[in-house]
Amino acid sequence: MLLKNRQNEIKSLLKNKSVLTTLEERYCYSVDASNLEKRGKIPEVVVFPETIEDVQTVVSYANEHNIPVVSRGAGTNMVGACVCTEGGIVLNLSKMDKILEINISNMTATVQPGVVVGNLKAAAENVGLFYPPDPSNFKVSTVGGGIAQSSGGAMSFKYGTTKDYVLSLKVVMADGKLMTLGVGTIKDASGYHLAQLMVGSEGTLGIIVEATLKLIPKPEARRTVAAYFNTFGDAICAVDGIIAQHIFPAAIDFMDRNSMLTVEDFAHCGLKTENECMLLVDVDGSEASLDSQINKIVSVVKEVNSSDITVADSEEASESLWKARRTSYAATSRLAPDVLSDDIIVPRDKLAEMISYCNDITKRYNLKMCLVGHVGDGNIHPQIALDLSNDEEFKSYVEAKSMMYKKAVELGGTISAEHGIGIEKLSYLENTIDNEAIKYMKMIKQIFDPKNILNPNKIFKL
Amino acid sequence: MLLKNRQNEIKSLLKNKSVLTTLEERYCYSVDASNLEKRGKIPEVVVFPETIEDVQTVVSYANEHNIPVVSRGAGTNMVGACVCTEGGIVLNLSKMDKILEINISNMTATVQPGVVVGNLKAAAENVGLFYPPDPSNFKVSTVGGGIAQSSGGAMSFKYGTTKDYVLSLKVVMADGKLMTLGVGTIKDASGYHLAQLMVGSEGTLGIIVEATLKLIPKPEARRTVAAYFNTFGDAICAVDGIIAQHIFPAAIDFMDRNSMLTVEDFAHCGLKTENECMLLVDVDGSEASLDSQINKIVSVVKEVNSSDITVADSEEASESLWKARRTSYAATSRLAPDVLSDDIIVPRDKLAEMISYCNDITKRYNLKMCLVGHVGDGNIHPQIALDLSNDEEFKSYVEAKSMMYKKAVELGGTISAEHGIGIEKLSYLENTIDNEAIKYMKMIKQIFDPKNILNPNKIFKL
Repeated sequence: MLLKNRQNEIKSLLKNKSVLTTLEERYCYSVDASNLEKRGKIPEVVVFPETIEDVQTVVSYANEHNIPVVSRGAGTNMVGACVCTEGGIVLNLSKMDKILEINISNMTATVQPGVVVGNLKAAAENVGLFYPPDPSNFKVSTVGGGIAQSSGGAMSFKYGTTKDYVLSLKVVMADGKLMTLGVGTIKDASGYHLAQLMVGSEGTLGIIVEATLKLIPKPEARRTVAAYFNTFGDAICAVDGIIAQHIFPAAIDFMDRNSMLTVEDFAHCGLKTENECMLLVDVDGSEASLDSQINKIVSVVKEVNSSDITVADSEEASESLWKARRTSYAATSRLAPDVLSDDIIVPRDKLAEMISYCNDITKRYNLKMCLVGHVGDGNIHPQIALDLSNDEEFKSYVEAKSMMYKKAVELGGTISAEHGIGIEKLSYLENTIDNEAIKYMKMIKQIFDPKNILNPNKIFKL
Repeated sequence: MLLKNRQNEIKSLLKNKSVLTTLEERYCYSVDASNLEKRGKIPEVVVFPETIEDVQTVVSYANEHNIPVVSRGAGTNMVGACVCTEGGIVLNLSKMDKILEINISNMTATVQPGVVVGNLKAAAENVGLFYPPDPSNFKVSTVGGGIAQSSGGAMSFKYGTTKDYVLSLKVVMADGKLMTLGVGTIKDASGYHLAQLMVGSEGTLGIIVEATLKLIPKPEARRTVAAYFNTFGDAICAVDGIIAQHIFPAAIDFMDRNSMLTVEDFAHCGLKTENECMLLVDVDGSEASLDSQINKIVSVVKEVNSSDITVADSEEASESLWKARRTSYAATSRLAPDVLSDDIIVPRDKLAEMISYCNDITKRYNLKMCLVGHVGDGNIHPQIALDLSNDEEFKSYVEAKSMMYKKAVELGGTISAEHGIGIEKLSYLENTIDNEAIKYMKMIKQIFDPKNILNPNKIFKL
């Protein structure tokens, strides 16, 4: 009865706009892309706000009645950041999907949170500008989600992550008040950087309802080199060698042999699977600069024994090389009923050791792993294919994962580079970062959300 | 007597290492580069810690006895961030000046807070890497100060500010505990970004005792174009035109006619002072890219009526063009006993309006102003020469300044882009940013520093 009352109250508050209340509808929103459905409860109501005022109305109501509010965009995160651990209200911001302004002269975009990252990227490029963050799901994931999860992508090596593009945010606070953080200029030293505190806060401190983002001039041209290596060590040497040539590649990604085999079997991209790994190096800049950059890269990779080098001579050829890399998650998902993509980062000089450790551990636990990642950053995504309903396999996975996390931290890295913590990595956080820092994070959470209604039980438990 | 006791206690805690206690010595540390000596009190003791433990010892003592602690590096900030409004202990971190590591493969530098920014820049460049932040005082200012004040510089247009290079910080908290924030990898999505919260917090939340910073590959080459214009509007059109050519200049600075005249009179740089303003455009990247970038820039500036164009064909020629720009503060200081350099930013499409407003206002109040700044960012530094001991002149200055701040905010900008708030701009902050945001800033301050001993009365009053 209480459930029906609440549903009706919220419906009436929002004048019946886009409120889902049937069990079937609500069921779909208890989880996200993280395969953690066991830990989600079915929310009481799913709301699709269309305006900032709608968000304020719902949050004020939730605050008054102590109801958890889980905000989400496309729900593509991998760590259970949108799982409804306590039921409550789901705020689906996907209808707030307008690009409000692209200001060419100021090089800024002002957007609603539900704008798909790829749409923003395209809109910027249409006017000669560029929004660099490129999480591999950018064709569906939203800007708000990218900010909430501090997302990155292949081009973070040169261009940084979402954090580096957030200038100003409008945020609905736990009490329903609207707050503006930061200013829409390229620089700002006027008080604490609260907008940066919101980045990566996973909906636990406030609900982002508008963002002003920095854009940069779109590089004139871009080209890709693919090079194969017989050892990871050689591939990483190649990266060091490229940097030593004063080249700043837009992206340096890699695929291991397993992922090449799996992709090849699925998408027939012509990968040379007899090699241990492939490096994809993108360079960009003025058209005039590309040949010399490419030539230098080719001679560096030759020096460190690359067995095979392909230079893409067109946008399409580049795209087809990257297609293989981007297909790896989908391809891996064919190996077993489930696939879990992890997100570990270590300093680059420790990457060979980390990769070798991941291989040893997954072999020991008999797990199928395809390894891809952003080698420039030291960020790897072990994609593990398994059957989650097989308890033994799941146990092995959890053990292997814990050991990988432990190793990453030992090597001076961390357990999340660009996916966030959510519920998936929550229990590992205290063995990862300074516990004194967690103490301050919790105190900040309590200031922003004294009743703990905003996406409770994410990142850490209070 | 109490004073002597305290001094002796601190001396004994630090085993007599570098503790200044005489009146003459302490007097020098009551103020910083901001001309706000009237608002500073003489600190009770000035300590030069040499280790993190020294800092912890002093802060723990201060915490126990409720003594204010003002930390400082070179004291070059312009907003009174190191002024001792309450006396107390000055922690001068300039002896903690070691570059602990430059890791080429990870592209990171780990430094003590007292490292001079220019020394870090040189050390990075020595190994083919690059630390972009370049506040104009980089030859003396310290890395810790740059982080505390969120400093920028001419190259922020392309490369961002100090904030974009902070990966991890070690911070001594108000209770004397040491806390590590963030991790020394290029990306991190493991909990709230507390290291970013420290950036720009001006010593009010904790004392930065070590920083791990991101470095990037050093661009192979750099070249400068100087172009003169008869109106600001033309100069700003030129900037838009350059961006439209997919060029991302490393810096786009300007000098107005007054500043050119003042510099010319002082340093005889050969500036063409018959023009309204000069634009300095730096491009960098691979050697192969420079000619085409320069050619495009030259044709853009010709199209918008640049009356005179100089292309520097060597590092030295570039340096001599920039020398004029960098000399402007020193040159302006010859016009009157004092000079105050301000720091306003507006969206670039509002910059011509802002500049024209500054000119009108200073004319109306009969103030001497030399205007320079980073036109790419929309960031201007009105340098006002006056006699601070002349009450009437000071009153005019304060009125003019208030009006400029008001206008900057009206135009969607803010009152500090890269200098910080300190005590100088504290009273203007509430008319600048969302007061709800200030409320949260104050609550955060209270969490981090419940006794309000860390640089009290800066940014805002509790």
